[in-house]
Amino acid sequence: MADFDIDLMSCPLPKMDYDTIQLAHGAGGKLSADLIDKIFIPRFGNETLDKLEDQAVLNIPKNKIAFTTDTFVVDPIFFPGGNIGELAINGTVNDVAMSGAKPLYLSVGFILEEGLPLETLHIIALSMEKAAKQAGVKIVAGDTKVVNRGSCDKLFINTSGIGIVPNNVNISANRLTPGDKIIISGSVADHGMAVMTTREDLSFKSKIKSDTAALNGLVEVMLNISEDIHAMRDPTRGGVATTLNEFAKQSDVGIQLYSDKIPVKHDVKGACEVLGIDPLYVANEGKLIAVVGSEIAENMVEAMLKHELGKNASIIGEVVNDNKGIVVQQTGLGVNRIIDLPVGEQLPRIC
Amino acid sequence: MADFDIDLMSCPLPKMDYDTIQLAHGAGGKLSADLIDKIFIPRFGNETLDKLEDQAVLNIPKNKIAFTTDTFVVDPIFFPGGNIGELAINGTVNDVAMSGAKPLYLSVGFILEEGLPLETLHIIALSMEKAAKQAGVKIVAGDTKVVNRGSCDKLFINTSGIGIVPNNVNISANRLTPGDKIIISGSVADHGMAVMTTREDLSFKSKIKSDTAALNGLVEVMLNISEDIHAMRDPTRGGVATTLNEFAKQSDVGIQLYSDKIPVKHDVKGACEVLGIDPLYVANEGKLIAVVGSEIAENMVEAMLKHELGKNASIIGEVVNDNKGIVVQQTGLGVNRIIDLPVGEQLPRIC
Repeated sequence: MADFDIDLMSCPLPKMDYDTIQLAHGAGGKLSADLIDKIFIPRFGNETLDKLEDQAVLNIPKNKIAFTTDTFVVDPIFFPGGNIGELAINGTVNDVAMSGAKPLYLSVGFILEEGLPLETLHIIALSMEKAAKQAGVKIVAGDTKVVNRGSCDKLFINTSGIGIVPNNVNISANRLTPGDKIIISGSVADHGMAVMTTREDLSFKSKIKSDTAALNGLVEVMLNISEDIHAMRDPTRGGVATTLNEFAKQSDVGIQLYSDKIPVKHDVKGACEVLGIDPLYVANEGKLIAVVGSEIAENMVEAMLKHELGKNASIIGEVVNDNKGIVVQQTGLGVNRIIDLPVGEQLPRIC
Repeated sequence: MADFDIDLMSCPLPKMDYDTIQLAHGAGGKLSADLIDKIFIPRFGNETLDKLEDQAVLNIPKNKIAFTTDTFVVDPIFFPGGNIGELAINGTVNDVAMSGAKPLYLSVGFILEEGLPLETLHIIALSMEKAAKQAGVKIVAGDTKVVNRGSCDKLFINTSGIGIVPNNVNISANRLTPGDKIIISGSVADHGMAVMTTREDLSFKSKIKSDTAALNGLVEVMLNISEDIHAMRDPTRGGVATTLNEFAKQSDVGIQLYSDKIPVKHDVKGACEVLGIDPLYVANEGKLIAVVGSEIAENMVEAMLKHELGKNASIIGEVVNDNKGIVVQQTGLGVNRIIDLPVGEQLPRIC
């Protein structure tokens, strides 16, 4: 079921009185307690969460923190390369990490549909446990709501995250400066196309897998090269095109993309062509875009190439003085085309 | 529509290209930007949120913080005395405040159903703005997802919150000590019965209003009397009965409730009788239970009585040595009855 390697033999679904989620599992009574005790605490437990207070009290050693929230509604909830639970951990870890912060603590809020198989929730909780461990973060606060059948689609997950920002780091979408280089950590459009190609009416065979991954380890490597990263973001919904447009507008600069530098895997490119979708607009869940001064760009890429999640890193463009607020890509023919913000919704419920 | 006094004349829905939520409003592109610029930033804007980064970077002056999350799925989204937006602000402010912390920052995650009228979202955002101002908290991070029609019920809201815990405060469900007094800040069951009596098939006339309110101001008054509050919680889902059971179990003590001390408003009591529901099990959204040493209990109540949200505060019971883990209420006849955790779901989607 899950692509994340989950061993249900060594960690089977605990014996419970019901096989599926009941409204009472969200009511705060005995069944709520049962769900927390048997499904969540064994997976997420730590000295803070185990207290079962309504809030986590945390010791924060430094005084600048990053705080972020994201809700996950991806459909289907299991897709090649991952599932909604893993995505919910990695997505929020990444949003914290993109500020240069070290992610430390997460909260998790579930909305469950009455009738959801408990085994599904168990597998998702297992994936979340594994993803949180890999990223080195603790789940310290949680909430579960159950809605009646038909009032949500299986389950939705909100995660919020807290991290510590190093003192000298100041990463922001408004710090792009002409001459800066645009770096991408690897191939684009993997996550979005993995989800798209599994949707029922697009079931052509493909080996495309989501790239969902926690990027905080890669960010640490990058900050060791230089703390002076100007801007950084993970190009999720709306893809690389949207992130770069936001950068260009917020810094009031132009962005020039090199024509043939943006890495796209062969299968992904094929699927995009079949569906008529530009990979620059497709969601990624384990990639980052960094904007750095040209003097450190080569060193930065070199360091990234040595990390598993940066092994296809490359410089894909630069910040320019003209075309303020606009992203331009040179085509193979030497013509410039404007990479605008997407207007409609190509890929609903991708994350 | 909203009970919270919203002046749409002075703050009308901005002119937008659509009247209802489209899938593209959640896609991260132009329509997403439009929604953020016209509906959310005018309501929630502040120097942190306006940066439109994927995470808020916050200066935290002290080193112990409270962190909490809660998802709101209340049905209907407008009810007498409030709406889902106001509830989402107050609920998370209260969860932070119950640790004795001063709530400072909130994140907001929306799940919107395609087709939701923009005016509904606008009114809810206005209520949230007002509630956040009243509570003195800033919304510093946000996320919006849109799901296709039928995949959620109108809208759900997750809020996560951060606050600063004063150094000498140590409030916890495991600090109840025999002899301690149980204080409630006012009448019980208002919120739950306000929602129940508005559900379609229970439309008997009543004047019951939700008690939704931010309790951080009251908590400040209480901490001024003594920082040594042993335990504190807002009895939301599952009501007073559930909160006290959790306290009794986590501290391994008994709780004895006085028979006639629990304040229930006349209309609320009537509605509970008609529906066959015990008010002790019904959700509150603007009440707190505090457990304090007997030597300070009277002073604490006296101070609470002077605050708008504590004007019906009273001592409703005490912590005892016997009946460990159990909550007992003396009935009018002098017989003890056990107030157990609720087993089923009496009131789905109450918050």
